[in-house]
Amino acid sequence: MYQGLINKYREFLPVSDKTPVITLNEGNTPLIKAENLAKKIGLNCEIYLKYEGLNPTGSFKDRGMTMAVSKAKEDGSQAVICASTGNTSAAAAAYAAKAGMRAYVLIPDGYIALGKLSQAMMYGAEIIAIKGNFDEALEMVIEISKNYPITLVNSVNPFRIEGQKTGAFEIIEALGDAPDYHFIPVGNAGNITAYFKGYEEFYALKKSSHLPKMMGFEAEGAAAIVKGERIYKPETIATAIRIGNPASWKQAERARDLSKGIINYVTDDEIIYAYKLLASTEGIFAEPASCASVAGVIKAQKLGLIEENKKLVCILTGNGLKDPDSAIKYSQSEVKKTDAKLDEIIKVMKF
Amino acid sequence: MYQGLINKYREFLPVSDKTPVITLNEGNTPLIKAENLAKKIGLNCEIYLKYEGLNPTGSFKDRGMTMAVSKAKEDGSQAVICASTGNTSAAAAAYAAKAGMRAYVLIPDGYIALGKLSQAMMYGAEIIAIKGNFDEALEMVIEISKNYPITLVNSVNPFRIEGQKTGAFEIIEALGDAPDYHFIPVGNAGNITAYFKGYEEFYALKKSSHLPKMMGFEAEGAAAIVKGERIYKPETIATAIRIGNPASWKQAERARDLSKGIINYVTDDEIIYAYKLLASTEGIFAEPASCASVAGVIKAQKLGLIEENKKLVCILTGNGLKDPDSAIKYSQSEVKKTDAKLDEIIKVMKF
Repeated sequence: MYQGLINKYREFLPVSDKTPVITLNEGNTPLIKAENLAKKIGLNCEIYLKYEGLNPTGSFKDRGMTMAVSKAKEDGSQAVICASTGNTSAAAAAYAAKAGMRAYVLIPDGYIALGKLSQAMMYGAEIIAIKGNFDEALEMVIEISKNYPITLVNSVNPFRIEGQKTGAFEIIEALGDAPDYHFIPVGNAGNITAYFKGYEEFYALKKSSHLPKMMGFEAEGAAAIVKGERIYKPETIATAIRIGNPASWKQAERARDLSKGIINYVTDDEIIYAYKLLASTEGIFAEPASCASVAGVIKAQKLGLIEENKKLVCILTGNGLKDPDSAIKYSQSEVKKTDAKLDEIIKVMKF
Repeated sequence: MYQGLINKYREFLPVSDKTPVITLNEGNTPLIKAENLAKKIGLNCEIYLKYEGLNPTGSFKDRGMTMAVSKAKEDGSQAVICASTGNTSAAAAAYAAKAGMRAYVLIPDGYIALGKLSQAMMYGAEIIAIKGNFDEALEMVIEISKNYPITLVNSVNPFRIEGQKTGAFEIIEALGDAPDYHFIPVGNAGNITAYFKGYEEFYALKKSSHLPKMMGFEAEGAAAIVKGERIYKPETIATAIRIGNPASWKQAERARDLSKGIINYVTDDEIIYAYKLLASTEGIFAEPASCASVAGVIKAQKLGLIEENKKLVCILTGNGLKDPDSAIKYSQSEVKKTDAKLDEIIKVMKF
């Protein structure tokens, strides 16, 4: 019986018998072969989609959070805190609930639609809106975690990377080896760092024959690493990667350079195209930011960066249901109206 | 590498080597031990939650739809059709996309919020609104499927029950035997029928030592089976089980009687209580209808229907992200506002 990634990969993680395992059975997500997509874009390769949206709170953040919250509990912490409006806050709140700990989410007052936070609120998180901006909220949570038995679970928490690296382990086990290319959205750059760490560890243990080329894609309006400078007002429809100053910037560049990969960007139009294409050709509904990896495949193909007959993995970081507004906005079909008569309906169906 | 429930349970399903397997790697969902919940409600039993919301389109319907669409493809059908506004339409559209088939969804004009259909629309389904009510839409799709190479995938499609029964197989494999009690929401009654079929089949093959008592729960405002009569205007917040004339009525009664279980009802208040309790104590966010199973445990406990030291499984049929409106409406915490000062924030945190 699968009992979460800490139990599965215990020997590769910084846990001991004394670590209480706080798990929602995260990980173990599907790796789906995308033959329709490969055909549609005319790419003579095997494309696999790692659908991280099927983690318990709907995003890859659960992999890091099971580690962060288990270690917080082990250390005697009484609560977790983060400054986040999205997937991190939902994951933090869910694992805190399971651990019997409190969860606090600090946000800048007036800038956040509450709908984005309803998932964290359902899990019982307390939301505190401060008179200040996001940077000030982050400063505050860092200060609080230094002075009280409250654990910071933003991306600076090192245990999150440890949990997230297990995604690479699963891919190697599923394919029997590492893929040739690993396509991944880049926002804060923690996930590309984590995957590369996982690939490096299994390669060192001879569980794979090579490292994949790490192919990271930022959103054009938040492409700090590509442009080589902090973006002060990042803008993109892909809110989960709308980050202008990635916390794991250096590590992402290391992953790129050591693996002979790239970090590039995709436009919002390219992301939306991939978002719709993925749903309509593969039946997989991922949140817009997720689709930067698939948009990246299409761009890399155009740039001639993908050799034929290779294996590609795309990470789909979050569930499309996380962002109902985009789904409504970009739905492909329009409703057709007709009388309740067989021949009328068939005509409308163009059958 | 897990490749969906047809590949996993092929020998127990009506498929052959000629059946094209249309899969999104559905099934293989977590069975999560709910110790916090058991403690909270003071029940001296092991409670397990089968979190079906982590299927690819976010509900248990994917188990049936992989079968229905694979068989439709095998039979040379060119499209699927259903009259549904919820989880069935999303699953039908996703599997049709994967199969390269068209999907049509018939709805009564003017009664459906389009947000509910955005997931199916993302997958490329064509939505047709007819001037008529839901019963007429259902009549039309039946007529169309009789006269054209278009497969009806509403619950009358017998292959759906076959796919859904695999949930019982997974539970028996995870626990090493059948549970003592199986709690499940009852709407159209197809799922209780399917689980009991799965339990019966594995029991006949001596893969389990007994059958679980089937404990089905309708919503009070849609409790046709409990009341013994069709409900013409079913009403409940749990929209996924808002059904007044269950298609599998007789089979549900058979499951109840043969297993010495019950079919009872829970109120909307009890469902909402369970919905919030589940999220805040277990970190699991399930759609309201799902929570009828957990509400059922609480009711059955009060009625003295659960023996101590037993194993219970609750089916959580769908993902909470499917219903963002309920999440916003019933979120537990309110946003607190404060200055961006450490001592002010700590005061608000009551730390």
